Formats: sequence, structure tokens, C-alpha cells
Amino acid sequence: MVGKRPIVVTMGDPAGIGGEIALLAWRDHHETLPPFCILDDPERLQRLVAFTGIDCPLAKIADLQEATAISRRALPVLPLSRPIDALPGDDSTPDGPMVIESINKAITLAMDGRAGGMVTNPIQKSRLYAAGFPAPGHTEYLGKCANLSEPPVMLLAGPSLKVVPVTIHLSLRDAIARLSTQKIVHTLEVTIASLKTDFGIPHPRIAVSGLNPHAGEFGHLGREEIDIIGPAIQKVLKNGADVIGPLAGDTMFNEAARGTYDIAVCMYHDQALIPIKTLNFDNSVNVTVGLPFVRTSPDHGTAYNIAGTGTANPNSLVSAIRMAAEIAACRKKMKSRTTVDRKNKD
Amino acid sequence: MVGKRPIVVTMGDPAGIGGEIALLAWRDHHETLPPFCILDDPERLQRLVAFTGIDCPLAKIADLQEATAISRRALPVLPLSRPIDALPGDDSTPDGPMVIESINKAITLAMDGRAGGMVTNPIQKSRLYAAGFPAPGHTEYLGKCANLSEPPVMLLAGPSLKVVPVTIHLSLRDAIARLSTQKIVHTLEVTIASLKTDFGIPHPRIAVSGLNPHAGEFGHLGREEIDIIGPAIQKVLKNGADVIGPLAGDTMFNEAARGTYDIAVCMYHDQALIPIKTLNFDNSVNVTVGLPFVRTSPDHGTAYNIAGTGTANPNSLVSAIRMAAEIAACRKKMKSRTTVDRKNKD
Repeated sequence: MVGKRPIVVTMGDPAGIGGEIALLAWRDHHETLPPFCILDDPERLQRLVAFTGIDCPLAKIADLQEATAISRRALPVLPLSRPIDALPGDDSTPDGPMVIESINKAITLAMDGRAGGMVTNPIQKSRLYAAGFPAPGHTEYLGKCANLSEPPVMLLAGPSLKVVPVTIHLSLRDAIARLSTQKIVHTLEVTIASLKTDFGIPHPRIAVSGLNPHAGEFGHLGREEIDIIGPAIQKVLKNGADVIGPLAGDTMFNEAARGTYDIAVCMYHDQALIPIKTLNFDNSVNVTVGLPFVRTSPDHGTAYNIAGTGTANPNSLVSAIRMAAEIAACRKKMKSRTTVDRKNKD
Repeated sequence: MVGKRPIVVTMGDPAGIGGEIALLAWRDHHETLPPFCILDDPERLQRLVAFTGIDCPLAKIADLQEATAISRRALPVLPLSRPIDALPGDDSTPDGPMVIESINKAITLAMDGRAGGMVTNPIQKSRLYAAGFPAPGHTEYLGKCANLSEPPVMLLAGPSLKVVPVTIHLSLRDAIARLSTQKIVHTLEVTIASLKTDFGIPHPRIAVSGLNPHAGEFGHLGREEIDIIGPAIQKVLKNGADVIGPLAGDTMFNEAARGTYDIAVCMYHDQALIPIKTLNFDNSVNVTVGLPFVRTSPDHGTAYNIAGTGTANPNSLVSAIRMAAEIAACRKKMKSRTTVDRKNKD
């Protein structure tokens, strides 16, 4: 593994399970995981080791470059500028600014290429909003930091299903109001590009959901399928994409249906997240696509209620770290192929 | 099985798979299924037998009473007033009025107690609307026929999950607009009563979803949880019900979460139907609760695309017939218990 660029993992909400799933991920999987380090307070993590009894050696590092070699014998920790006081499950301490600092450091390292990618531990959004976090969630914030004109796209990948919601952290009412042909076309294009570049699928098959029950039943139960979604599908079909829909949301996720597409593009948060979290609760990964750098995250929340007990399941974080490294490798391969193709054409 | 009141099955859309799944259900399961008959055109079914090669003997009956004895050696068919011309997959013939007649006959037989309950085969709604069907779907129609002041409640039951959507055949926009504390309270009360009477669960545990992503995230992503859903839960809690929520839709359907409740009450069609059809596509059953008679239906559509091929899966119809008989038996048991309780009190 030495030589590979490490994956950086953010602290996340220090009152949540982020710290201990990182310890568990290293303890149980460091031999097979790509090199990774965590952006956190080493003292706090040491206290967490003592408190939970998770047998994970820590190594404070001064530079990300040290992480790759060290991660074989200890979990490398790149410190934050201030110590963290939060105790597991106690969200009363003012750690919001350090949570944001950890995210910002990871973005810098992923953007300038020192890290292979970044993995974000879960945050409690209401707590970050109080600390002045200027976005509804990680995904939108990363888009802002990368100066994207359109917000990036959230893709969830599990062993049984990949999904993309067209709208994410909006009330359902607002999600419907914001739906537009342009937004769906953008999402489809970013999704198709990501399946090619990040997942190595040369001809991705996309299934698009309707918004309404039974995909609107020919306009009887809503017109968005006819007025908004259908035209978006027509547009990308013209560009040669392999897209079907709008499909009835309720019947498109059974096992047989899932075999007919590589990814489902859905109209709102729960329509996409219900099926994947029903099927792959502990091992689905959130991938932000359309960014110039790689970002994944475990697909669960802060879980205050079990923080500090050492019982949290690290599988989703483990999958997120693994997937970040795989996407980084896939992007590298595609880039070198494109270079070879260009050379051959010259 | 002789002596039991038979379950009546409607024709459904004759261009769909309703006929052949009834033939398959009888052929493969008549020895273990409760007695049932179909309200259909015997000539059409005979042609379907010839066309599909499904080895199912038919017996035209003049009175429902004959069905129980006959159903052991043939599928009893109670004829409609006019023949049916539709061919499998061809929805161009004007059979709408006969589809409606079949539903109306079943309602009469279930209402007056001659049938143990009714099972409705799938209809193509747009085709029925054209024939003057005065409701958005079976469920609402049955409520009208039973003179209910509130529409009945649609419950879906599968081996892994039971769900109830608070709103059903409405565009998503209208579903949000129609959501009210009163409607949720009514749905919860009908659901709780049904779990006790129809499913024999003395102390049902109910999980209620939020409407918005992450159940509104403390009001940051919508206020319906605070203004509408929360107050409904408070109201039924005061009456001693075991109800939790509003829960985030995306995380409430994983295996561990499902173990904590008997049924999930959801805010709209897809939020309820996506998880159950993802988990139990071929064997979940639609039960209309809050009606004075028993009604179930297979939880799938007309499937024109495979009609006539004999490849349709009859499992959901089989489960629907079985569940109708089980609910009828459960209601009878509960009724006799109540009578005994009353006598003991006297």
C-alpha cells in the first residue's frame, strides 16, 4: 500500500460515532483497507480509545505524506487547531467550528491532490448551522468550495443498488417546486459521466423514476412526468444515453427490475434513499459526483444514542474509504486511457 | 374446506393478467387455498385456458353457494351479464362496464355476508375512468359503496413488512396539501383497530414516518412534522396507543428497525409502497381496512406486457386469497370473543 495517496477522513460531529467507527475501521480492516488518516484531535481520540476499549493505536502526524507508511501500524491523526471537549452523545459543547475546520482541511488536501480523496464522517446539521455552516449539507458545501455553478450530485452506492436523488436537502414541498427539466438533465449528465469515469461502466443504463404515484398514471395523478421528467429523458436520449422512464417509483426497485439498470435517478431524497437504505443499510456509501476531487461518506447519521458504546457498525465507513480509493484509481486509469487515446489520435 | 364461505375474486382488467393468475392459483394451490370463485366470463376463461395451456378445469356456477364444494375439483366461475371480447394485452375493447359489474357483484356478495370476503384483480384505471368509474381506485370506490364518511385505509402486508399510506391516489403535490392531523389520526385509529381485529395483534406497535427528508430535521427541512404529524401522534398516544415518530423515512425500513414495530404508517403512496415492493414484490397483499367487509388484492398491476403468456406470477393473488380468508376467520374469532366477554360481564 506504500506509495498510494492516502484517503483523508473528517472528524464529523465529535459527539457522534465518527471517531469510534474510524478506530473500529482501522482495528478490524487496516490490513486490507487503502491507507487513510483522520483529521481530528489526537487527545480526544486517545480518550475515546480508553473509554470504549477499542484496541486501536494512534499516531499523531504533522504532514499527510507520513500517513501512508504509518497507517500499517497505527491510525494516523492529522490534528486540528484546537482541542475537542465533546463527550460521546453530548452535543452541548461548541465544537461546530472545529467540525467545519476538519471538513475544510480535507477539501484542501483532496483538491490539491495530496489526498486520493476525502471521506466525511456524519455531522449533526442543526449544530453546524448554529456555527455558521453556510450550506444545507456536506454535498452542497463541497460544490460551493469547488466553485461549481450547479450543485454537485449525490450518488448512493450499495451492493444491491445505486441511486441518485435529483433534489436532496429540501422539504418535499420545495423539492417538487424546484424540479425542472434542466435540473434533471444536469443530474443525468453528471450521473452518466460519473458511472463512466468513477465506476468504469462504459455504457451505463439509467432508470428514471416519476414523481407521482404510478408515475402520474398518464397525467391522472400529476403532470410532472409529462411536463418535466419526460422532456428531460428525451433530451439525454438524443445524446445517445441509455435511459428509461419515467417509471413508477414503487415497482422499480424489486430484484428483477434492479437487474435492468446500473443506477436509478429519483426525483427526491426519500424516493432514492428508502430503497437503498432498506436493502443496504450498513454498507451503502454516499459519493458526491461532479466534483473535481473524490468524496465519499458513510450513509448514516451521528447516532448519538450509541456514541461511546463501541457498538456502532463501521461497515459503511469501511466501504466509503474503500470506494474513495477505488474511484481515485478508476479516475486515474480513465485519465491515462484518455491520454493514450489522444496520443493515438495525434 | 366445505362449509366455509368462499372468497370471491373479481375479473379485473380482462386484457391484463387477472384471468391467468386465477387459473394458475387454482391449478397450483387449490388443495391448500380456501374455497374461492371468480366473477368473470366462463367462455373467455375457457379461451384463456386453451391459449395459455394452463391446465385448470372451469365450472360455471349459478349461485355462490355452489362454489365451496366445486372449488375442490374446478375453478368456479360466476358469470357476468355480458361476454368479454378482450384479448390478452389488447386494451382496445370496451369492457370497462363489465369490469365494474364484476366489482359491484363482489361488493354485494361480501357486504351481505354470502362471501367470506372479496379479492380484486388489477384494473387499468385510465380505462375504467373512461367507462365512468366514479373513484380514483378500488379502495376509494369500496368506501363509497359502503357509505363510509371517511375513505377506507389501504394496508399493504408482506412477510417482511406491513405499511399504510395516509394518502394514496393523489399527485404528490396534492398528497402534501391534503395531509392533516385529523387525517393522520383517522388513519392511525383505523390501522390500530385493524391490527387488533383483522390480524389478531392485541397491542400493535406503530411507527409513523415524517413527510420530509430526515423527518424535517427539527424544522430545517419542512414543518409538517412539527405542525401536523407530531400533534397526530400525541393525540393517539393519549388514547394509550403504542406509537413512535415522526421517523426519518429513509432509515425506518432496514431490518433492525422493522423489528421494532408491527406496521409503518407513511405520509404518501411511494413512501409506503417503495419499501414493501422492494422487499416483498411477489407476495405482498393489499388489504382495505375500515370496511364492514373483507377486501384484499394482489399488490401488482395489469401487466399487459406479459398477459396471455402464462408466465405471470400468481403468488400475490394466492397470498391475497389466503389473507382474505384469514382476516375473515380472525374477525369471526374476535367477534365471538367480544360476545363471550359481553356475556361474562352481564
